[in-house]
Amino acid sequence: MKTFEAVFLDRGATKPLQVQLQQHLRNLIQSGKLSAGKALPSTRSLSVQLNISRNTVVTAYEQLISEAYLEARPRSGIYVSSALSQFSSERVVRTQRKPRAPSVVEDSTLLPPVPFRPCQPDVSLFPLALWNRYRGRVVRRDGLKLLQYNEHSAMGLRALRENIATYLRDGRGVKCDWRQIAITSGSQHAIFLLAHVLLKSGKKVYLEDPDYNGTKRIMNLFGAGIISGQVDEQGLRPPLAKDQPISFVYVTPSRQFPTGATLSLPRRLELIQEAAKTNTWIVEDDYDSDFRYRAAPLPSLQSLDTNDKVIYVGTFSKVLFPSLRMGYIALPKALLEDFLRVKYAVDQYGHFIEQATLSAFIENGALHSHIGRCKRHYAQRQEVFLESAARLGLPLDFRYKDGGMNLTGFLQPGMDDQECSKMLSDAGLDIPPLSSFSIKRSEPGLVFGFTAFGPQKICSSLECVAQVARRW
Amino acid sequence: MKTFEAVFLDRGATKPLQVQLQQHLRNLIQSGKLSAGKALPSTRSLSVQLNISRNTVVTAYEQLISEAYLEARPRSGIYVSSALSQFSSERVVRTQRKPRAPSVVEDSTLLPPVPFRPCQPDVSLFPLALWNRYRGRVVRRDGLKLLQYNEHSAMGLRALRENIATYLRDGRGVKCDWRQIAITSGSQHAIFLLAHVLLKSGKKVYLEDPDYNGTKRIMNLFGAGIISGQVDEQGLRPPLAKDQPISFVYVTPSRQFPTGATLSLPRRLELIQEAAKTNTWIVEDDYDSDFRYRAAPLPSLQSLDTNDKVIYVGTFSKVLFPSLRMGYIALPKALLEDFLRVKYAVDQYGHFIEQATLSAFIENGALHSHIGRCKRHYAQRQEVFLESAARLGLPLDFRYKDGGMNLTGFLQPGMDDQECSKMLSDAGLDIPPLSSFSIKRSEPGLVFGFTAFGPQKICSSLECVAQVARRW
Repeated sequence: MKTFEAVFLDRGATKPLQVQLQQHLRNLIQSGKLSAGKALPSTRSLSVQLNISRNTVVTAYEQLISEAYLEARPRSGIYVSSALSQFSSERVVRTQRKPRAPSVVEDSTLLPPVPFRPCQPDVSLFPLALWNRYRGRVVRRDGLKLLQYNEHSAMGLRALRENIATYLRDGRGVKCDWRQIAITSGSQHAIFLLAHVLLKSGKKVYLEDPDYNGTKRIMNLFGAGIISGQVDEQGLRPPLAKDQPISFVYVTPSRQFPTGATLSLPRRLELIQEAAKTNTWIVEDDYDSDFRYRAAPLPSLQSLDTNDKVIYVGTFSKVLFPSLRMGYIALPKALLEDFLRVKYAVDQYGHFIEQATLSAFIENGALHSHIGRCKRHYAQRQEVFLESAARLGLPLDFRYKDGGMNLTGFLQPGMDDQECSKMLSDAGLDIPPLSSFSIKRSEPGLVFGFTAFGPQKICSSLECVAQVARRW
Repeated sequence: MKTFEAVFLDRGATKPLQVQLQQHLRNLIQSGKLSAGKALPSTRSLSVQLNISRNTVVTAYEQLISEAYLEARPRSGIYVSSALSQFSSERVVRTQRKPRAPSVVEDSTLLPPVPFRPCQPDVSLFPLALWNRYRGRVVRRDGLKLLQYNEHSAMGLRALRENIATYLRDGRGVKCDWRQIAITSGSQHAIFLLAHVLLKSGKKVYLEDPDYNGTKRIMNLFGAGIISGQVDEQGLRPPLAKDQPISFVYVTPSRQFPTGATLSLPRRLELIQEAAKTNTWIVEDDYDSDFRYRAAPLPSLQSLDTNDKVIYVGTFSKVLFPSLRMGYIALPKALLEDFLRVKYAVDQYGHFIEQATLSAFIENGALHSHIGRCKRHYAQRQEVFLESAARLGLPLDFRYKDGGMNLTGFLQPGMDDQECSKMLSDAGLDIPPLSSFSIKRSEPGLVFGFTAFGPQKICSSLECVAQVARRW
């Protein structure tokens, strides 16, 4: 029984000897050193060999019999289970614990955005300390209640849903009861869930062209047909009769992403009327409507629609911070049941601590103040951006500038925006070409996000853009 | 111009007069009181009427023209846009801000579980204060970095993935590199994501019968065919040739949910061999393997498999707390690309603050200590439960009792477990019948969770069960 000589039992360890012995035996079997059908030493002989009590060996053998590693053959002895004949030495290799670096977050990928990456809020404006105070308060008050499963909260905590319903009513005229609000992990997650609900019957969707790439990714995952909807200075053109039947129209009315065009009021009404006539759903993604600097926002599609065909989607990723992963949907009543079925299948529960914190944050006016503060900064940054771009004579036409987080600079027709973006990237800038968002067609252009960068950074980065642009 | 008499401008408000005027005009148009094509008073006349500067009126009109509510007809005046002819008075009703209760979390549904609801951890054992200290530490160190978008972390923060890979290697023999770990919102979410990845080719799945209902819900959402796999005292029987082709087998080897049977080692090997032969994926849900009180756990399927057909799924909902919404998958390398594509479509980002906190919590040994503490309490509660049930002579056979959070009491063949469960429910207890988890067949039984309830509560509640059982 050479095999057992290597068995080293550590008498000083906190682990009982019989557990150590079990582990050794298990390893020997798994590694193939003790193969199926092989006899084990008697309990007496092994106890002598290892200088341990016979009871320890008996207990270890019993445990391994219960685990089916070993089998007792009457009047014969203990053997490695014959069922284990498939085991060969190369089958199982237990890996070793590797030493690892001690730092808590060592992600080299956790880097701040580079100018002018689109859609990036300035997270340094976020009142994290205040947020943490609210968090502490709800945890002290409701801690244990918030930790456990809560099967009635698949759509989110009631308090948060009520506060969001009020916020949407007051700010965007959205007509809904708190029962129609569903909490999601952001607007992309919302669209994903809606795809599960809406893509049942038809399989074609009508998307703005150019469009947010996340939507296209979702539609590709579902194998849905994508119809490219033309975007002009009035925003998305409504679908034509030949495009029907459509499962849903996806639209960003407040500020078309990425061009920045606002859907005009006549278009809004046309879209709503068409949807009612053709029984098509409209998904209204109002991702950054809070950031309008030069005029009050237009009424949301949802507020204009009396046929309950508009599904309103929003997110706190832009107004609070992205890794909060908190968005919402205001659902028409007709979809509530189907939506809940999907939500139950995807994940029945929520991050209740964060939901309760956000609820308190909204209710106490902190959200409102924070949006106001961001708006002031972002409006100033946009102004600095546009002034600086004009002063430098950039060969870009910034057509839509009433708000938002991005400014699209249109290039001369015929120019290659991918090439321009590539040159900017080589100069250390992150400014995607408009064509990278397009489905079929798009004017050449470059999409600049300006919100995450202070005025000085904006000016110096635009000078860099100007230098590159001279070589176009 | 009677219409404008009701316009009340609040000179004391912080809102500028022109903004107030805009809102009034918008409301009048939306409510249909000012209909399409109707002429507005001249700026001069309205300024006199409302006793405000003419400039204020001009600015308000200009804004509403930019929003397409109004239109200027040359040499005629300002009119409500003719495009708005679809607007009628009942079309848009702006709802009023409703006063709401001030409490932060008023959910009456946030109630602690009732005995003997299955699968409920005792969240009062969770060291929330310690958790919050770790959270504070990572937020102080990496706050802003953790708040923003991070497109390289769709699978989760690297530090957390590394710590989970180590935890799985040491505790469950799972062979994987941190790059194979994906963070999910719990194990149900993990199975949902995997359904998106695996259900492409075939559309049949092989489930344990009885089984966790969440899995069935997911399969129904995808319209997948469900094959009922028989569960006996050795756990799940592997699929037969006639069941093929199967997209994947879903199995809970450590402790079959809900019966509690452990998948025997010969069955494990058989299942792995079959999967390799038929090229079938195995989803191993190891949801509560940490809680084994009487013996060390069997090696995970993943650790036994050398063909990379096992996908290992786990969750922190049971060992930490459910509303943390944190689970993980150890993916075979062959699935990484497809999985990432799905994850990118569903939600590209994560709750980075919570991920970093959990990473520190694992790395500093707090997870290990917490699991040890829970195990001691839960082992004691299980003992109290079984002793008390035996003393009371409950007509239930608790067959599988080596660990976990639940004990299934099998009833005499032929008994109606739904009726028994209903009677217990009438007595204020929450003990689901085994048949509520079954696909096709199941012995009658009742599923008791014992972990969330202290010894006294267990005893008194079991006495209540005994009283009800006398009437069966």
